[in-house]
Amino acid sequence: MGLSPDELSARVRKGDPRAVARAISLVEDGAPAARELVGQLHRHGGRAFVVGVTGAPGSGKSTLVDQLVATVRGAQLTVAVVAVDPSSPFTGGAVLGDRVRMGRHSDDPGVFVRSMATRGHLGGLSQATADAVAVLDAAGRDVILVETVGVGQDEVEIMRLAAVTILLLVPGTGDDVQALKAGVMEIADVFVINKADRPDADRLMEAVESSLALRQAGAGEWQPPVLKTEAVRGVGVEAVWAAVGRCREHRGVHDRAGRERERWASRLRDSVARRAGVLVAERIPADDWARILSEVMARDIDADAAADRLLARAFSGRGQ
Amino acid sequence: MGLSPDELSARVRKGDPRAVARAISLVEDGAPAARELVGQLHRHGGRAFVVGVTGAPGSGKSTLVDQLVATVRGAQLTVAVVAVDPSSPFTGGAVLGDRVRMGRHSDDPGVFVRSMATRGHLGGLSQATADAVAVLDAAGRDVILVETVGVGQDEVEIMRLAAVTILLLVPGTGDDVQALKAGVMEIADVFVINKADRPDADRLMEAVESSLALRQAGAGEWQPPVLKTEAVRGVGVEAVWAAVGRCREHRGVHDRAGRERERWASRLRDSVARRAGVLVAERIPADDWARILSEVMARDIDADAAADRLLARAFSGRGQ
Repeated sequence: MGLSPDELSARVRKGDPRAVARAISLVEDGAPAARELVGQLHRHGGRAFVVGVTGAPGSGKSTLVDQLVATVRGAQLTVAVVAVDPSSPFTGGAVLGDRVRMGRHSDDPGVFVRSMATRGHLGGLSQATADAVAVLDAAGRDVILVETVGVGQDEVEIMRLAAVTILLLVPGTGDDVQALKAGVMEIADVFVINKADRPDADRLMEAVESSLALRQAGAGEWQPPVLKTEAVRGVGVEAVWAAVGRCREHRGVHDRAGRERERWASRLRDSVARRAGVLVAERIPADDWARILSEVMARDIDADAAADRLLARAFSGRGQ
Repeated sequence: MGLSPDELSARVRKGDPRAVARAISLVEDGAPAARELVGQLHRHGGRAFVVGVTGAPGSGKSTLVDQLVATVRGAQLTVAVVAVDPSSPFTGGAVLGDRVRMGRHSDDPGVFVRSMATRGHLGGLSQATADAVAVLDAAGRDVILVETVGVGQDEVEIMRLAAVTILLLVPGTGDDVQALKAGVMEIADVFVINKADRPDADRLMEAVESSLALRQAGAGEWQPPVLKTEAVRGVGVEAVWAAVGRCREHRGVHDRAGRERERWASRLRDSVARRAGVLVAERIPADDWARILSEVMARDIDADAAADRLLARAFSGRGQ
């Protein structure tokens, strides 16, 4: 499809699945046309309900997401899944994954599944995911489920896209608990103990509840519930979705614009920081890079002090 | 210890473990004194052999590291372990972990173990780890093992600290393979199939070997070996350490300064980008942030276009 951003944008807004897929590929590749496209689509977004699902590898994210898709479809809403899977060079990663994952929903036009691959430029994953959500939002999807491993800076940024975030924990996996950063804990709105038929489920539930009880909750602030599921058998899934809905309603009443504003402010800060880094690096002449790098390697100066010196020059418009 | 950076630096260089611990806490907190300290210590570094160990949660990193510590000590070398564990609010994270992890090495002054916690400021983890390595290097440790989960931008940056990197994979865990980004694959110098007594070990080994065979290896380039271990029983560990040594030697012959230079160049670029983001964000007046944020929320402009506009003003010295 050699469409202009205008044409592609128009087709995306009609919900054409091929146009949606094409648009997401563009943003994933960081193609120049992608920025104009996202700029246009952003004007028509803001309607979709974006829900994050995060947890360590093996916590059952895909299974829960699959069940949530069925629940959402049962309510006659359209849904998109954006799975941020670090792609594997062994399995062929994202593309194969999407077909497998569609599974029982593969004949349902109300379900759109897309994995985001890294395609080499690691830092761009959170940006590409934000753009993919913007595409799906403008395409009129009612619910967008964003699934990601809850570790790392990228993932925390990605989770900021969600209005409500579900965190999966699994009993008896020390690794699982270890793998979850405090930052992710703080982002979660609904805690789910998955594989709740395992022996340590109650203990984990109590641990999470005591941890939550220690938080200083402000007046009118949402109190995250802790729920049990066996996602494989569908047990507890409806209750999770109901809790997600309650959280959304609660925020609608108590915190209408504040959280939304904080989310966009955070997006904007990230974007400024990322772009500033690129812009400034480009302003530094190759000779300066080479000279100071040699000094770092000769151990005359450490890397951060060297960076400060380069920046001082870049900002003073080539002084000294 | 209310020491000046000079005094602390002198004690670190004598290898005083309390001073080393104190210095790492300073860099972890991002304390102002930390920058001066690292600047001083950098001059005295460059001798330690830094080895990275990466793999998904549950792949057996800590177990392999524990075995490698024993191997290194057997060769009469001193060793430090820097474990970059996303800390858990449940378990108390890093501090408890260190005591447990010391285990059989806890009476050996030739072994120093330290977990790096995130302490809230997520983006700073790679910087703090780089600084901790600089401290341990200046303290005269012969070998520094850096252990981290192989997912995310932070972790890839951390792995750049290592002269040689070991990647652990586990048979039969689709998650494990999925969790490893292509970027991490490319960084690895020694591939280890851990828990090699599991049924699919041979299949995984073949998959990794075919994947490696597809790479375009330049003349004189190191060819990463694929080895099997059962780290819990110590099986295969000596062979892993031998491969690490061969990789180091190979690089010493074929690629003396190139790789080292590329590593520092990468550190320097990261540092410039990170600091530039902070500097530029500080230059933007609060009024400008607020105004453009409202435009983003009103959907007049998307976040990235808004960031570009803020940057254009910041760089033109408040024009328009």
